[in-house]
Amino acid sequence: MATTTTTAAFTSQRLTIIGVGLIGGSLARALRRAHCCDEVVGCGRDEAHLKKAVELGVIDRYEMNVAAAVSGADMVVVAVPLRAMATVFSQMVSGLAADTVITDVGSAKASVVKTARAQLGDRFSDFVPGHPIAGTEQSGVEASFAELFDNRGVILTPLIETDAEKCARVRTMWECAGASVTDMAVAHHDEVLAATSHLPHLLAFSLVNTLASLDERKEIFDFAAGGFRDFTRIASSDPVMWRDICLENRDAVLEVLQHFNSDLRQLEDAIRDDDGEAVVNVFARAKATRDRFCG
Amino acid sequence: MATTTTTAAFTSQRLTIIGVGLIGGSLARALRRAHCCDEVVGCGRDEAHLKKAVELGVIDRYEMNVAAAVSGADMVVVAVPLRAMATVFSQMVSGLAADTVITDVGSAKASVVKTARAQLGDRFSDFVPGHPIAGTEQSGVEASFAELFDNRGVILTPLIETDAEKCARVRTMWECAGASVTDMAVAHHDEVLAATSHLPHLLAFSLVNTLASLDERKEIFDFAAGGFRDFTRIASSDPVMWRDICLENRDAVLEVLQHFNSDLRQLEDAIRDDDGEAVVNVFARAKATRDRFCG
Repeated sequence: MATTTTTAAFTSQRLTIIGVGLIGGSLARALRRAHCCDEVVGCGRDEAHLKKAVELGVIDRYEMNVAAAVSGADMVVVAVPLRAMATVFSQMVSGLAADTVITDVGSAKASVVKTARAQLGDRFSDFVPGHPIAGTEQSGVEASFAELFDNRGVILTPLIETDAEKCARVRTMWECAGASVTDMAVAHHDEVLAATSHLPHLLAFSLVNTLASLDERKEIFDFAAGGFRDFTRIASSDPVMWRDICLENRDAVLEVLQHFNSDLRQLEDAIRDDDGEAVVNVFARAKATRDRFCG
Repeated sequence: MATTTTTAAFTSQRLTIIGVGLIGGSLARALRRAHCCDEVVGCGRDEAHLKKAVELGVIDRYEMNVAAAVSGADMVVVAVPLRAMATVFSQMVSGLAADTVITDVGSAKASVVKTARAQLGDRFSDFVPGHPIAGTEQSGVEASFAELFDNRGVILTPLIETDAEKCARVRTMWECAGASVTDMAVAHHDEVLAATSHLPHLLAFSLVNTLASLDERKEIFDFAAGGFRDFTRIASSDPVMWRDICLENRDAVLEVLQHFNSDLRQLEDAIRDDDGEAVVNVFARAKATRDRFCG
Protein backbone atom coordinates (compact mmCIF):
# COMPACT_ATOMS: atom_id res chain seq x y z
CA MET A 1 0.00 0.00 0.00
CA ALA A 2 1.47 3.30 -1.03
CA THR A 3 2.10 5.96 1.58
CA THR A 4 0.12 9.08 0.89
CA THR A 5 1.65 12.47 1.42
CA THR A 6 0.03 15.86 1.75
CA THR A 7 3.00 17.72 0.31
CA ALA A 8 2.29 18.99 -3.19
CA ALA A 9 4.97 18.22 -5.73
CA PHE A 10 7.25 21.01 -6.85
CA THR A 11 8.99 20.86 -10.17
CA SER A 12 11.14 23.39 -11.94
CA GLN A 13 12.60 23.19 -15.38
CA ARG A 14 15.06 25.92 -14.59
CA LEU A 15 15.71 27.28 -11.12
CA THR A 16 18.00 30.28 -10.81
CA ILE A 17 19.76 30.98 -7.52
CA ILE A 18 21.27 34.43 -7.22
CA GLY A 19 23.81 34.27 -4.41
CA VAL A 20 25.02 30.67 -4.11
CA GLY A 21 26.07 30.73 -0.46
CA LEU A 22 25.01 28.75 2.59
CA ILE A 23 21.28 29.35 2.07
CA GLY A 24 21.12 29.48 -1.73
CA GLY A 25 23.45 26.49 -2.05
CA SER A 26 21.58 24.46 0.57
CA LEU A 27 18.25 25.15 -1.16
CA ALA A 28 19.69 23.95 -4.47
CA ARG A 29 21.03 20.81 -2.78
CA ALA A 30 17.73 20.13 -1.00
CA LEU A 31 15.70 20.47 -4.21
CA ARG A 32 18.16 18.28 -6.10
CA ARG A 33 17.86 15.70 -3.34
CA ALA A 34 14.08 15.71 -3.97
CA HIS A 35 14.63 15.50 -7.75
CA CYS A 36 12.57 18.65 -8.23
CA CYS A 37 14.74 20.58 -10.68
CA ASP A 38 15.83 19.82 -14.22
CA GLU A 39 18.44 22.56 -14.15
CA VAL A 40 19.88 24.87 -11.51
CA VAL A 41 21.59 28.06 -12.70
CA GLY A 42 23.74 30.06 -10.31
CA CYS A 43 24.59 33.73 -10.37
CA GLY A 44 26.90 35.87 -8.25
CA ARG A 45 29.74 38.34 -8.33
CA ASP A 46 32.60 35.94 -7.58
CA GLU A 47 33.32 33.65 -10.52
CA ALA A 48 35.71 31.40 -8.57
CA HIS A 49 32.96 30.85 -6.05
CA LEU A 50 30.47 29.94 -8.78
CA LYS A 51 32.98 27.54 -10.35
CA LYS A 52 33.31 25.91 -6.96
CA ALA A 53 29.51 25.59 -6.79
CA VAL A 54 29.53 23.78 -10.16
CA GLU A 55 32.38 21.51 -9.02
CA LEU A 56 30.43 20.64 -5.88
CA GLY A 57 27.39 19.76 -7.99
CA VAL A 58 25.28 22.43 -6.32
CA ILE A 59 24.49 24.21 -9.60
CA ASP A 60 24.64 22.97 -13.18
CA ARG A 61 26.06 26.16 -14.64
CA TYR A 62 26.38 29.84 -13.87
CA GLU A 63 25.98 33.25 -15.42
CA MET A 64 27.71 36.39 -14.17
CA ASN A 65 24.98 38.59 -15.63
CA VAL A 66 21.72 38.65 -13.65
CA ALA A 67 19.37 39.07 -16.65
CA ALA A 68 21.10 36.18 -18.43
CA ALA A 69 20.92 34.06 -15.29
CA VAL A 70 17.15 34.46 -14.89
CA SER A 71 16.46 33.98 -18.62
CA GLY A 72 14.17 31.00 -19.13
CA ALA A 73 13.90 30.33 -15.38
CA ASP A 74 10.48 29.50 -13.93
CA MET A 75 11.73 30.17 -10.38
CA VAL A 76 14.29 32.76 -9.25
CA VAL A 77 15.58 32.74 -5.67
CA VAL A 78 17.46 35.82 -4.49
CA ALA A 79 19.86 34.87 -1.68
CA VAL A 80 22.23 37.83 -1.47
CA PRO A 81 22.81 40.20 1.48
CA LEU A 82 19.95 42.68 1.94
CA ARG A 83 21.84 45.70 0.65
CA ALA A 84 22.76 43.88 -2.55
CA MET A 85 19.12 43.15 -3.41
CA ALA A 86 18.20 46.44 -5.08
CA THR A 87 20.82 45.95 -7.79
CA VAL A 88 19.85 42.32 -8.30
CA PHE A 89 16.14 43.12 -8.65
CA SER A 90 16.76 45.99 -11.05
CA GLN A 91 19.08 43.91 -13.22
CA MET A 92 16.77 40.89 -13.43
CA VAL A 93 13.65 42.56 -14.80
CA SER A 94 14.64 42.51 -18.46
CA GLY A 95 15.44 38.78 -18.29
CA LEU A 96 12.24 37.55 -16.63
CA ALA A 97 9.79 35.37 -18.55
CA ALA A 98 6.05 36.06 -18.23
CA ASP A 99 5.48 33.24 -15.74
CA THR A 100 8.66 33.49 -13.67
CA VAL A 101 8.19 33.40 -9.91
CA ILE A 102 10.63 35.48 -7.86
CA THR A 103 11.33 34.92 -4.20
CA ASP A 104 14.04 35.77 -1.70
CA VAL A 105 15.49 34.56 1.61
CA GLY A 106 16.22 37.89 3.28
CA SER A 107 16.06 38.17 7.06
CA ALA A 108 14.23 41.55 7.19
CA LYS A 109 11.07 41.62 5.10
CA ALA A 110 9.94 45.26 5.18
CA SER A 111 13.27 46.22 3.66
CA VAL A 112 13.11 43.60 0.90
CA VAL A 113 9.48 44.40 0.11
CA LYS A 114 10.27 48.09 -0.23
CA THR A 115 13.24 47.36 -2.47
CA ALA A 116 11.35 44.86 -4.61
CA ARG A 117 8.41 47.22 -5.00
CA ALA A 118 10.74 49.97 -6.18
CA GLN A 119 12.81 47.81 -8.54
CA LEU A 120 10.47 45.16 -9.94
CA GLY A 121 7.78 47.53 -11.25
CA ASP A 122 4.78 45.64 -12.57
CA ARG A 123 6.49 42.32 -11.80
CA PHE A 124 6.16 43.03 -8.08
CA SER A 125 3.04 40.84 -7.87
CA ASP A 126 5.20 37.89 -8.97
CA PHE A 127 7.53 38.39 -6.03
CA VAL A 128 6.92 36.27 -2.91
CA PRO A 129 8.92 37.51 0.10
CA GLY A 130 10.31 34.56 2.07
CA HIS A 131 12.66 33.74 4.91
CA PRO A 132 13.88 30.30 5.94
CA ILE A 133 14.48 30.17 9.71
CA ALA A 134 17.61 28.12 9.35
CA GLY A 135 21.30 28.67 9.01
CA THR A 136 24.63 28.10 10.67
CA GLU A 137 27.43 30.47 11.60
CA GLN A 138 29.24 29.40 8.45
CA SER A 139 28.88 30.93 5.03
CA GLY A 140 29.70 30.15 1.43
CA VAL A 141 28.68 27.30 -0.85
CA GLU A 142 31.22 24.99 0.80
CA ALA A 143 29.14 25.18 3.98
CA SER A 144 25.86 24.34 2.22
CA PHE A 145 24.10 21.03 2.81
CA ALA A 146 20.86 19.45 1.65
CA GLU A 147 19.46 18.87 5.14
CA LEU A 148 19.62 22.51 6.32
CA PHE A 149 15.87 23.08 5.99
CA ASP A 150 14.64 19.67 7.15
CA ASN A 151 11.89 20.23 9.73
CA ARG A 152 12.74 23.92 9.91
CA GLY A 153 10.29 26.75 9.40
CA VAL A 154 10.04 29.07 6.44
CA ILE A 155 8.07 32.28 6.80
CA LEU A 156 6.40 33.81 3.75
CA THR A 157 5.12 37.38 4.00
CA PRO A 158 2.91 37.76 0.91
CA LEU A 159 1.24 41.13 0.33
CA ILE A 160 -2.24 41.98 -0.85
CA GLU A 161 -0.91 42.29 -4.40
CA THR A 162 1.10 39.04 -4.34
CA ASP A 163 -0.16 36.51 -6.89
CA ALA A 164 -1.72 33.61 -4.94
CA GLU A 165 -0.59 30.92 -7.36
CA LYS A 166 2.98 32.14 -7.29
CA CYS A 167 2.86 32.18 -3.51
CA ALA A 168 1.61 28.59 -3.51
CA ARG A 169 4.46 27.61 -5.81
CA VAL A 170 7.06 29.06 -3.45
CA ARG A 171 5.38 27.24 -0.59
CA THR A 172 5.62 23.86 -2.35
CA MET A 173 9.24 24.58 -3.24
CA TRP A 174 10.15 24.97 0.43
CA GLU A 175 8.10 21.94 1.41
CA CYS A 176 10.00 19.89 -1.15
CA ALA A 177 13.20 21.22 0.44
CA GLY A 178 12.07 19.72 3.76
CA ALA A 179 10.66 22.80 5.49
CA SER A 180 7.25 23.68 6.87
CA VAL A 181 5.86 27.00 5.71
CA THR A 182 3.99 29.68 7.67
CA ASP A 183 2.51 32.95 6.44
CA MET A 184 3.06 36.06 8.52
CA ALA A 185 2.59 39.81 8.19
CA VAL A 186 5.75 41.69 7.24
CA ALA A 187 5.92 43.82 10.40
CA HIS A 188 5.24 40.85 12.66
CA HIS A 189 8.01 38.87 10.99
CA ASP A 190 10.47 41.70 11.45
CA GLU A 191 9.62 42.10 15.15
CA VAL A 192 9.82 38.37 15.90
CA LEU A 193 13.13 37.96 14.08
CA ALA A 194 14.58 41.10 15.67
CA ALA A 195 13.96 39.44 19.02
CA THR A 196 15.01 35.85 18.37
CA SER A 197 17.74 36.31 15.81
CA HIS A 198 18.94 39.85 15.15
CA LEU A 199 19.35 40.93 18.78
CA PRO A 200 21.16 37.71 19.79
CA HIS A 201 23.59 38.16 16.89
CA LEU A 202 24.14 41.79 17.84
CA LEU A 203 24.85 40.83 21.46
CA ALA A 204 27.18 38.00 20.51
CA PHE A 205 29.19 40.17 18.11
CA SER A 206 29.31 42.98 20.64
CA LEU A 207 30.39 40.75 23.53
CA VAL A 208 33.23 39.13 21.60
CA ASN A 209 34.31 42.57 20.39
CA THR A 210 34.39 43.81 24.00
CA LEU A 211 36.36 40.78 25.17
CA ALA A 212 38.80 41.23 22.28
CA SER A 213 39.53 44.71 23.66
CA LEU A 214 40.05 43.32 27.15
CA ASP A 215 42.16 40.40 26.02
CA GLU A 216 45.47 42.20 26.11
CA ARG A 217 47.32 39.27 27.51
CA LYS A 218 45.61 36.74 25.23
CA GLU A 219 44.38 34.84 28.23
CA ILE A 220 40.70 35.52 28.41
CA PHE A 221 39.88 33.13 25.61
CA ASP A 222 42.25 30.42 26.84
CA PHE A 223 39.87 29.77 29.70
CA ALA A 224 36.61 29.86 27.80
CA ALA A 225 34.47 26.78 28.39
CA GLY A 226 31.88 25.07 26.25
CA GLY A 227 29.18 27.52 27.27
CA PHE A 228 31.20 30.37 25.83
CA ARG A 229 31.74 28.56 22.54
CA ASP A 230 28.00 27.99 22.16
CA PHE A 231 27.08 31.48 23.30
CA THR A 232 29.44 33.13 20.84
CA ARG A 233 29.03 30.73 17.92
CA ILE A 234 26.80 33.21 16.07
CA ALA A 235 29.58 35.83 16.36
CA SER A 236 31.36 33.78 13.68
CA SER A 237 28.59 34.66 11.21
CA ASP A 238 29.17 36.74 8.08
CA PRO A 239 29.76 40.40 9.08
CA VAL A 240 28.38 41.96 5.87
CA MET A 241 25.20 39.90 5.91
CA TRP A 242 24.61 40.87 9.54
CA ARG A 243 25.49 44.52 9.04
CA ASP A 244 22.78 44.61 6.38
CA ILE A 245 20.25 42.85 8.61
CA CYS A 246 20.84 45.18 11.57
CA LEU A 247 20.62 48.27 9.39
CA GLU A 248 17.69 47.11 7.25
CA ASN A 249 15.65 46.00 10.27
CA ARG A 250 16.85 48.95 12.30
CA ASP A 251 13.59 50.06 13.91
CA ALA A 252 12.62 46.62 15.18
CA VAL A 253 16.18 45.86 16.29
CA LEU A 254 16.54 49.13 18.19
CA GLU A 255 13.17 48.64 19.83
CA VAL A 256 13.92 45.19 21.19
CA LEU A 257 17.43 46.35 22.14
CA GLN A 258 15.83 49.09 24.23
CA HIS A 259 13.76 46.48 26.10
CA PHE A 260 16.87 44.41 26.59
CA ASN A 261 18.92 47.35 27.88
CA SER A 262 16.21 48.38 30.29
CA ASP A 263 15.87 44.86 31.74
CA LEU A 264 19.64 44.43 31.92
CA ARG A 265 19.96 47.69 33.85
CA GLN A 266 17.47 46.38 36.42
CA LEU A 267 19.46 43.16 36.74
CA GLU A 268 22.67 45.17 37.11
CA ASP A 269 21.07 47.20 39.90
CA ALA A 270 19.92 44.03 41.64
CA ILE A 271 23.47 42.62 41.52
CA ARG A 272 24.92 45.90 42.83
CA ASP A 273 22.36 45.93 45.66
CA ASP A 274 23.00 42.25 46.49
CA ASP A 275 19.30 41.61 45.87
CA GLY A 276 19.55 37.85 45.52
CA GLU A 277 15.79 37.38 45.24
CA ALA A 278 15.51 39.72 42.26
CA VAL A 279 18.50 38.07 40.57
CA VAL A 280 17.30 34.52 41.07
CA ASN A 281 13.81 35.44 39.87
CA VAL A 282 15.19 36.69 36.55
CA PHE A 283 17.42 33.64 36.14
CA ALA A 284 14.66 31.18 37.11
CA ARG A 285 12.15 32.75 34.73
CA ALA A 286 14.71 32.66 31.92
CA LYS A 287 15.54 29.03 32.62
CA ALA A 288 11.87 28.02 32.75
CA THR A 289 11.16 29.86 29.51
CA ARG A 290 14.11 28.40 27.67
CA ASP A 291 13.51 24.88 28.97
CA ARG A 292 9.88 25.14 27.83
CA PHE A 293 10.63 26.31 24.31
CA CYS A 294 14.03 24.82 23.53
CA GLY A 295 14.24 21.95 26.01
CA MET B 1 57.67 -1.33 25.71
CA ALA B 2 55.62 0.46 28.30
CA THR B 3 54.30 3.94 27.55
CA THR B 4 55.63 6.47 30.00
CA THR B 5 53.37 9.18 31.32
CA THR B 6 54.20 12.44 33.03
CA THR B 7 50.99 12.48 35.05
CA ALA B 8 51.63 11.62 38.68
CA ALA B 9 49.32 8.99 40.11
CA PHE B 10 46.57 10.10 42.44
CA THR B 11 45.12 7.73 44.95
CA SER B 12 42.62 8.29 47.69
CA GLN B 13 41.44 5.86 50.30
CA ARG B 14 38.41 7.96 51.02
CA LEU B 15 37.28 10.88 48.88
CA THR B 16 34.39 12.97 50.16
CA ILE B 17 32.31 15.02 47.73
CA ILE B 18 30.09 17.63 49.34
CA GLY B 19 27.46 18.56 46.77
CA VAL B 20 27.04 15.61 44.39
CA GLY B 21 25.77 17.50 41.36
CA LEU B 22 27.03 17.88 37.82
CA ILE B 23 30.56 18.84 38.84
CA GLY B 24 30.95 16.83 42.03
CA GLY B 25 29.33 13.79 40.44
CA SER B 26 31.42 14.04 37.29
CA LEU B 27 34.63 14.30 39.32
CA ALA B 28 33.68 11.17 41.26
CA ARG B 29 32.93 9.34 38.01
CA ALA B 30 36.18 10.50 36.40
CA LEU B 31 38.29 9.39 39.37
CA ARG B 32 36.49 6.04 39.50
CA ARG B 33 37.16 5.62 35.80
CA ALA B 34 40.88 6.07 36.60
CA HIS B 35 40.61 3.64 39.55
CA CYS B 36 41.98 6.34 41.86
CA CYS B 37 39.63 6.00 44.83
CA ASP B 38 38.96 3.18 47.21
CA GLU B 39 35.82 4.82 48.53
CA VAL B 40 33.75 7.85 47.56
CA VAL B 41 31.49 9.37 50.22
CA GLY B 42 28.81 11.86 49.24
CA CYS B 43 27.21 14.58 51.32
CA GLY B 44 24.37 16.99 50.63
CA ARG B 45 21.07 18.32 51.89
CA ASP B 46 18.75 16.24 49.71
CA GLU B 47 18.72 12.60 50.77
CA ALA B 48 16.74 11.41 47.74
CA HIS B 49 19.37 12.99 45.54
CA LEU B 50 22.18 11.23 47.44
CA LYS B 51 20.35 7.89 47.20
CA LYS B 52 20.15 8.46 43.48
CA ALA B 53 23.91 9.08 43.42
CA VAL B 54 24.49 5.73 45.17
CA GLU B 55 22.13 3.99 42.73
CA LEU B 56 24.01 5.48 39.79
CA GLY B 57 27.30 4.21 41.25
CA VAL B 58 28.68 7.74 41.52
CA ILE B 59 29.28 7.45 45.28
CA ASP B 60 29.62 4.40 47.52
CA ARG B 61 27.66 5.82 50.42
CA TYR B 62 26.51 9.11 51.84
CA GLU B 63 26.27 11.06 55.07
CA MET B 64 23.85 13.89 55.70
CA ASN B 65 26.14 15.39 58.34
CA VAL B 66 29.17 17.25 56.98
CA ALA B 67 31.56 16.37 59.84
CA ALA B 68 30.61 12.69 59.56
CA ALA B 69 31.03 12.82 55.79
CA VAL B 70 34.59 14.16 55.93
CA SER B 71 35.60 11.82 58.77
CA GLY B 72 38.51 9.64 57.66
CA ALA B 73 38.67 11.28 54.23
CA ASP B 74 42.08 12.16 52.80
CA MET B 75 40.50 14.44 50.19
CA VAL B 76 37.39 16.60 50.55
CA VAL B 77 35.91 18.35 47.51
CA VAL B 78 33.33 21.08 48.16
CA ALA B 79 31.03 21.41 45.15
CA VAL B 80 28.07 23.40 46.49
CA PRO B 81 26.81 26.85 45.36
CA LEU B 82 29.05 29.68 46.59
CA ARG B 83 26.66 30.96 49.22
CA ALA B 84 26.34 27.50 50.76
CA MET B 85 30.09 27.19 51.30
CA ALA B 86 30.41 29.06 54.62
CA THR B 87 28.12 26.58 56.36
CA VAL B 88 29.87 23.59 54.80
CA PHE B 89 33.34 24.82 55.80
CA SER B 90 32.29 25.60 59.35
CA GLN B 91 30.60 22.23 59.78
CA MET B 92 33.49 20.19 58.42
CA VAL B 93 36.28 21.41 60.70
CA SER B 94 35.56 19.08 63.62
CA GLY B 95 35.56 16.03 61.32
CA LEU B 96 38.82 16.68 59.47
CA ALA B 97 41.81 14.36 59.99
CA ALA B 98 45.28 15.88 60.37
CA ASP B 99 46.30 15.16 56.77
CA THR B 100 42.99 15.86 55.00
CA VAL B 101 43.23 18.02 51.89
CA ILE B 102 40.29 20.33 51.21
CA THR B 103 39.49 21.82 47.83
CA ASP B 104 36.51 23.35 46.06
CA VAL B 105 35.15 23.95 42.56
CA GLY B 106 33.62 27.41 43.04
CA SER B 107 33.47 29.83 40.09
CA ALA B 108 34.53 32.95 42.03
CA LYS B 109 37.73 32.49 44.00
CA ALA B 110 38.06 35.67 46.09
CA SER B 111 34.70 34.88 47.64
CA VAL B 112 35.59 31.26 48.43
CA VAL B 113 39.01 32.20 49.79
CA LYS B 114 37.49 34.78 52.11
CA THR B 115 34.88 32.31 53.32
CA ALA B 116 37.38 29.49 53.80
CA ARG B 117 39.78 31.77 55.67
CA ALA B 118 36.99 32.81 58.03
CA GLN B 119 35.60 29.31 58.61
CA LEU B 120 38.53 26.89 58.42
CA GLY B 121 40.71 28.60 61.03
CA ASP B 122 44.15 26.97 61.23
CA ARG B 123 43.11 24.41 58.59
CA PHE B 124 43.04 27.16 55.97
CA SER B 125 46.54 26.19 54.78
CA ASP B 126 45.14 22.76 53.87
CA PHE B 127 42.57 24.34 51.56
CA VAL B 128 43.42 24.54 47.84
CA PRO B 129 41.02 26.83 45.94
CA GLY B 130 40.17 25.30 42.55
CA HIS B 131 37.87 25.78 39.59
CA PRO B 132 37.33 23.36 36.71
CA ILE B 133 36.53 25.26 33.50
CA ALA B 134 33.94 22.75 32.42
CA GLY B 135 30.25 22.22 32.76
CA THR B 136 27.01 22.02 30.84
CA GLU B 137 23.72 23.84 31.23
CA GLN B 138 22.39 20.83 33.08
CA SER B 139 22.63 20.17 36.78
CA GLY B 140 22.23 17.33 39.23
CA VAL B 141 23.98 13.99 39.57
CA GLU B 142 21.89 12.54 36.72
CA ALA B 143 23.68 14.96 34.36
CA SER B 144 27.17 13.98 35.56
CA PHE B 145 29.54 12.04 33.33
CA ALA B 146 33.11 10.80 33.62
CA GLU B 147 34.38 12.63 30.51
CA LEU B 148 33.38 16.15 31.60
CA PHE B 149 36.93 17.20 32.46
CA ASP B 150 38.78 15.42 29.67
CA ASN B 151 41.17 17.90 28.06
CA ARG B 152 39.55 20.77 29.93
CA GLY B 153 41.37 23.24 32.11
CA VAL B 154 41.30 23.46 35.88
CA ILE B 155 42.53 26.64 37.54
CA LEU B 156 44.02 26.48 41.01
CA THR B 157 44.50 29.74 42.93
CA PRO B 158 46.77 28.76 45.84
CA LEU B 159 47.71 31.47 48.32
CA ILE B 160 50.99 32.20 50.03
CA GLU B 161 49.88 30.15 53.03
CA THR B 162 48.60 27.17 51.01
CA ASP B 163 50.52 23.97 51.76
CA ALA B 164 52.53 23.10 48.62
CA GLU B 165 52.16 19.34 49.00
CA LYS B 166 48.40 19.62 49.39
CA CYS B 167 48.29 21.81 46.33
CA ALA B 168 50.28 19.21 44.37
CA ARG B 169 47.84 16.53 45.51
CA VAL B 170 44.84 18.48 44.20
CA ARG B 171 46.70 19.00 40.94
CA THR B 172 47.28 15.27 40.47
CA MET B 173 43.65 14.57 41.36
CA TRP B 174 42.45 16.77 38.49
CA GLU B 175 45.03 15.34 36.12
CA CYS B 176 43.77 11.85 36.92
CA ALA B 177 40.27 13.14 36.15
CA GLY B 178 41.49 14.06 32.66
CA ALA B 179 42.10 17.81 33.06
CA SER B 180 45.15 20.00 32.68
CA VAL B 181 45.87 22.29 35.60
CA THR B 182 47.01 25.92 35.63
CA ASP B 183 47.84 28.13 38.60
CA MET B 184 46.50 31.67 38.60
CA ALA B 185 46.18 34.58 41.02
CA VAL B 186 42.77 34.87 42.65
CA ALA B 187 41.94 38.31 41.26
CA HIS B 188 43.08 37.39 37.77
CA HIS B 189 40.91 34.27 37.82
CA ASP B 190 37.89 36.28 38.88
CA GLU B 191 38.39 38.86 36.11
CA VAL B 192 38.94 36.29 33.38
CA LEU B 193 35.92 34.24 34.41
CA ALA B 194 33.73 37.32 34.79
CA ALA B 195 34.47 38.03 31.12
CA THR B 196 34.26 34.57 29.56
CA SER B 197 31.66 32.92 31.74
CA HIS B 198 29.77 35.12 34.19
CA LEU B 199 28.90 37.95 31.80
CA PRO B 200 27.76 35.57 29.02
CA HIS B 201 25.49 33.78 31.49
CA LEU B 202 24.12 37.09 32.73
CA LEU B 203 23.38 38.24 29.17
CA ALA B 204 21.78 34.95 28.19
CA PHE B 205 19.53 34.88 31.26
CA SER B 206 18.64 38.54 30.76
CA LEU B 207 17.87 38.17 27.05
CA VAL B 208 15.58 35.17 27.54
CA ASN B 209 13.87 37.00 30.39
CA THR B 210 13.28 40.02 28.13
CA LEU B 211 11.93 37.85 25.33
CA ALA B 212 9.66 36.06 27.79
CA SER B 213 8.11 39.45 28.57
CA LEU B 214 7.65 40.21 24.89
CA ASP B 215 6.31 36.78 24.04
CA GLU B 216 2.67 37.55 24.75
CA ARG B 217 1.40 35.63 21.80
CA LYS B 218 3.77 32.68 22.39
CA GLU B 219 5.17 33.13 18.93
CA ILE B 220 8.61 34.56 19.41
CA PHE B 221 10.11 31.25 20.43
CA ASP B 222 8.27 29.29 17.74
CA PHE B 223 10.53 30.89 15.17
CA ALA B 224 13.82 30.59 16.99
CA ALA B 225 16.52 28.92 14.90
CA GLY B 226 19.56 26.89 15.87
CA GLY B 227 21.61 30.00 16.59
CA PHE B 228 19.12 31.03 19.25
CA ARG B 229 19.21 27.61 20.89
CA ASP B 230 23.00 27.73 21.12
CA PHE B 231 23.07 31.36 22.22
CA THR B 232 20.59 30.78 25.01
CA ARG B 233 21.70 27.29 26.08
CA ILE B 234 23.46 28.70 29.15
CA ALA B 235 20.19 30.35 30.21
CA SER B 236 19.05 26.83 31.13
CA SER B 237 21.73 26.72 33.85
CA ASP B 238 20.93 26.48 37.55
CA PRO B 239 19.51 29.84 38.76
CA VAL B 240 20.73 29.55 42.36
CA MET B 241 24.27 28.61 41.40
CA TRP B 242 24.41 31.56 39.00
CA ARG B 243 22.82 34.00 41.42
CA ASP B 244 25.60 33.14 43.84
CA ILE B 245 28.29 33.54 41.18
CA CYS B 246 27.02 36.95 40.03
CA LEU B 247 26.73 38.21 43.58
CA GLU B 248 29.97 36.70 44.89
CA ASN B 249 31.99 37.95 41.92
CA ARG B 250 30.07 41.21 41.83
CA ASP B 251 32.92 43.69 41.36
CA ALA B 252 34.50 41.87 38.44
CA VAL B 253 31.12 41.14 36.85
CA LEU B 254 29.95 44.75 37.11
CA GLU B 255 33.24 46.01 35.72
CA VAL B 256 33.14 43.85 32.60
CA LEU B 257 29.42 44.57 32.23
CA GLN B 258 30.25 48.27 32.17
CA HIS B 259 32.71 47.70 29.30
CA PHE B 260 30.07 45.67 27.51
CA ASN B 261 27.36 48.31 27.97
CA SER B 262 29.63 51.07 26.76
CA ASP B 263 30.61 49.17 23.60
CA LEU B 264 27.00 48.12 22.96
CA ARG B 265 25.88 51.74 23.18
CA GLN B 266 28.41 52.68 20.50
CA LEU B 267 27.13 49.89 18.29
CA GLU B 268 23.56 51.01 18.91
CA ASP B 269 24.50 54.54 17.86
CA ALA B 270 26.16 53.23 14.72
CA ILE B 271 23.01 51.30 13.78
CA ARG B 272 20.82 54.34 14.48
CA ASP B 273 23.13 56.51 12.34
CA ASP B 274 23.20 53.92 9.52
CA ASP B 275 26.98 53.84 9.92
CA GLY B 276 27.57 50.60 8.06
CA GLU B 277 31.34 50.85 8.28
CA ALA B 278 31.35 51.09 12.06
CA VAL B 279 28.88 48.19 12.32
CA VAL B 280 30.77 45.89 9.98
CA ASN B 281 34.05 46.69 11.72
CA VAL B 282 32.67 45.53 15.06
CA PHE B 283 31.17 42.39 13.52
CA ALA B 284 34.32 41.56 11.53
CA ARG B 285 36.59 42.00 14.54
CA ALA B 286 34.30 39.80 16.62
CA LYS B 287 34.21 37.11 13.94
CA ALA B 288 38.00 37.18 13.51
CA THR B 289 38.52 36.96 17.26
CA ARG B 290 36.09 34.12 17.76
CA ASP B 291 37.34 32.18 14.73
CA ARG B 292 40.89 32.52 16.06
CA PHE B 293 40.14 31.30 19.58
CA CYS B 294 37.20 28.96 19.15
CA GLY B 295 37.41 28.02 15.46
